[in-house]
Amino acid sequence: MSLHGSYDSENVFAQILRGEMPAAQIIEEDHAIAIMDAFPQTRGHCLVIPKAESRNLLGASPKDMGRIFGLVQRVTQAVDKALSPSGIIISQFNGAPAGQTVFHTHVHIIPRYDMSDMAEHAQGRQADMNELEALAGQIRAALD
Amino acid sequence: MSLHGSYDSENVFAQILRGEMPAAQIIEEDHAIAIMDAFPQTRGHCLVIPKAESRNLLGASPKDMGRIFGLVQRVTQAVDKALSPSGIIISQFNGAPAGQTVFHTHVHIIPRYDMSDMAEHAQGRQADMNELEALAGQIRAALD
Repeated sequence: MSLHGSYDSENVFAQILRGEMPAAQIIEEDHAIAIMDAFPQTRGHCLVIPKAESRNLLGASPKDMGRIFGLVQRVTQAVDKALSPSGIIISQFNGAPAGQTVFHTHVHIIPRYDMSDMAEHAQGRQADMNELEALAGQIRAALD
Repeated sequence: MSLHGSYDSENVFAQILRGEMPAAQIIEEDHAIAIMDAFPQTRGHCLVIPKAESRNLLGASPKDMGRIFGLVQRVTQAVDKALSPSGIIISQFNGAPAGQTVFHTHVHIIPRYDMSDMAEHAQGRQADMNELEALAGQIRAALD
């Protein structure tokens, strides 16, 4: 059900894409944006969000794959340069049983600094917007 | 270090790509293969592996992003059709502290059937090759 439901345009990422909700943006491209996750699992947790409406990867435009994951790669490289983590996890959840909480396709880029640095996502505190904007600026400056 | 080390061509995915190691293959394309994970976290756990040598996403060819993740999307859609999971996790680990154990870029496609079905990866048992070949056949048949 969750994998195949309809798209609800009131989800928080749709609101961010429409400018109705603030976000610490790293970059906006024609087909996707990269922002800081407002409930970061680690310092520097970013999201890449395609602009087109889709509930999850099953319904995303095949044409968007290169655009979305090209941007994921570039943001990952920028996070590496800006923050020097020891590892970086890329994850993309489809359906609530897979951990998806916002039903607009999105990709997580999560730097790891050691083996015990992960807060439980969405159970962590909301991050300070000024801190997120500063991180977004560091990562933006490191983007090729 | 782990994020930026050199490429070791004796890694298990390089051996599979050279045909020196068996794998239950779903599909081979010009730039990537899709196979069943030999130590599946859940039933139907697949991998997409680009053919080009790279240690992780930082060093993968930008041209390969559309090819790799286009195939990830199609295999994800085929897993959904063939196995009807309730959710599907896509993950890609960069560096040992992020959970990477084989240092050739690869993407996991992990179906979820409920909230408690995940074996700890690489601590689970090795799967039976006949079972994996049967699953590969089911997923191959569902590929568009």
